[in-house]
Amino acid sequence: MTMLALYFDGELKLQEVPAPEPGPGEVLVRVRLAGVCGTDLQVLRGYHGFRGILGHEFVGEVAAPPDSPWLGQRVVGEINIACGACDFCRRGKNHHCRERRVLGLLGHDGAFAPYLTLPAANLHAVPPEVPDEAAVFTEPLAAALAVTELLPLQTSPLLVIGDGRLGLLVSFVLALGGRAVHLAGHHPDHLDLAKPRGVITFLEKDLPAGDYEVVVEASGSSTGLDLALRRVRPLGLVVLKSTYAGRYPLDPATLVVPEVRLVGSRCGPFAPALRLLAQGLVDPRPLIARRFPLSQGLAALAWAQRPGVLKVLLEC
Amino acid sequence: MTMLALYFDGELKLQEVPAPEPGPGEVLVRVRLAGVCGTDLQVLRGYHGFRGILGHEFVGEVAAPPDSPWLGQRVVGEINIACGACDFCRRGKNHHCRERRVLGLLGHDGAFAPYLTLPAANLHAVPPEVPDEAAVFTEPLAAALAVTELLPLQTSPLLVIGDGRLGLLVSFVLALGGRAVHLAGHHPDHLDLAKPRGVITFLEKDLPAGDYEVVVEASGSSTGLDLALRRVRPLGLVVLKSTYAGRYPLDPATLVVPEVRLVGSRCGPFAPALRLLAQGLVDPRPLIARRFPLSQGLAALAWAQRPGVLKVLLEC
Repeated sequence: MTMLALYFDGELKLQEVPAPEPGPGEVLVRVRLAGVCGTDLQVLRGYHGFRGILGHEFVGEVAAPPDSPWLGQRVVGEINIACGACDFCRRGKNHHCRERRVLGLLGHDGAFAPYLTLPAANLHAVPPEVPDEAAVFTEPLAAALAVTELLPLQTSPLLVIGDGRLGLLVSFVLALGGRAVHLAGHHPDHLDLAKPRGVITFLEKDLPAGDYEVVVEASGSSTGLDLALRRVRPLGLVVLKSTYAGRYPLDPATLVVPEVRLVGSRCGPFAPALRLLAQGLVDPRPLIARRFPLSQGLAALAWAQRPGVLKVLLEC
Repeated sequence: MTMLALYFDGELKLQEVPAPEPGPGEVLVRVRLAGVCGTDLQVLRGYHGFRGILGHEFVGEVAAPPDSPWLGQRVVGEINIACGACDFCRRGKNHHCRERRVLGLLGHDGAFAPYLTLPAANLHAVPPEVPDEAAVFTEPLAAALAVTELLPLQTSPLLVIGDGRLGLLVSFVLALGGRAVHLAGHHPDHLDLAKPRGVITFLEKDLPAGDYEVVVEASGSSTGLDLALRRVRPLGLVVLKSTYAGRYPLDPATLVVPEVRLVGSRCGPFAPALRLLAQGLVDPRPLIARRFPLSQGLAALAWAQRPGVLKVLLEC
């Protein structure tokens, strides 16, 4: 059996590929919706050297094996496929497994296709009150939640840089913690999505003077990191949230002299993300910019690369 | 009254300048010995935009005012001159004072001269058992000690990159904590200074495979940071210890994907540094490469810039 998939081998192609078959411990998922992430766009620019079917944000339905207790269930899935045996897996840090594969990013075909496989251990059932259009945001919402785990208790406002998909989700979940959140971006229509969540928003050029104990860089740009390092106060924390194919020109004195901490953050926990979606505490649907059928996948990824475009979904 | 001093105004000059006079709360110090630091050499390359008398590592004797309780005492001095009133000073973090001046680095003339001024509050008496040649290392030794405050308790070996002045001192104080310390460098004769302290040393090219929970980058080079980020394990800590005039090409994915923390570290506490010197637990004198009289200061700083040269001292 073959299927049409968005395949990357140095060039993005829509092509017929063999449908995957679940191995031991794995399930076959019929993908319903998949989301385009900034990291997917970085892969197209050479990030990570990935070759295969792209896509790691999805919601779908378990289609096989027939004896799986998951059969027919609506699911989302964690993207790191861990060995379960290395020192990191044994410490419960399996998203840093030394032998890991990553859905649509590293050694394992992804979600921009009608079918994908994942270990059953990676699955989370989607509560019935969460529609597909919200469930497909579980992975990036979990990644946003990971930021909250890094933050010290503090009362001063914190700054999120970047009003794209990730920056908005990060500002939403930080505001849910009762924190005073400032969000700086370039798109008034994006910033408007954050205002109803209690986030104080600024066009980057209008950000008032002052420094912050915590700055989250989610803009995915070198100028964003520069701004973060200018605005973080001495002994403060900068959380670096985005991945890129390129390199930043980092002035080491901006870390050493003010003794600033720069901390990378990647994946986060799915269960709390699903709870927030089920309780309606986060509704990511206003972030949806446009939906495309998978057969128009090339157009979808081209469209997702346009400046100021938020979440693009693929109907697989 | 004038004095001969090493003055930098975009160009390093040995020139007659007015001798400083202590202001309210300040003392006049007759400098005996001053040390050349990597940061001084960076200032010559444009770092910090400093204009004035260079030098911040010194030991000397208080010469005025006549009614000072410090008069005649042998002292070393903390280099940050704080306002005492800003939010950082009020929190006891006065080395991050928002209005600070820094001896020989920012808005206050330094130690490459027969006389300097400092607030009396910055002084520490040098115990009689510490010779001038060791006391002049108090400031860099304190900076090395600052690293120990950042480290989690851990049992695995940690890696120090760089066998220059700072890397050696950092490896010495880390080993004093009972830690297993690996030191990687380029100079067998430098590495030999660390071996008697229980430090396991490697030429960088011979560093065995494996990763580290903590890596201290003290080489002052972009390749050092690259090595640190290759060798730190996921969720690990990289301490960035050196300041430079240039920028590093940082691959942000090396922080974000393994969720690594990169932490800047600058100044440290003088009192424990003096205790280590007094107890002989650290003897920095083998790091002295050469002494010059101040009148040969230009030659001294030229010599300090030669690759592989450790500490150069000026007799002021």
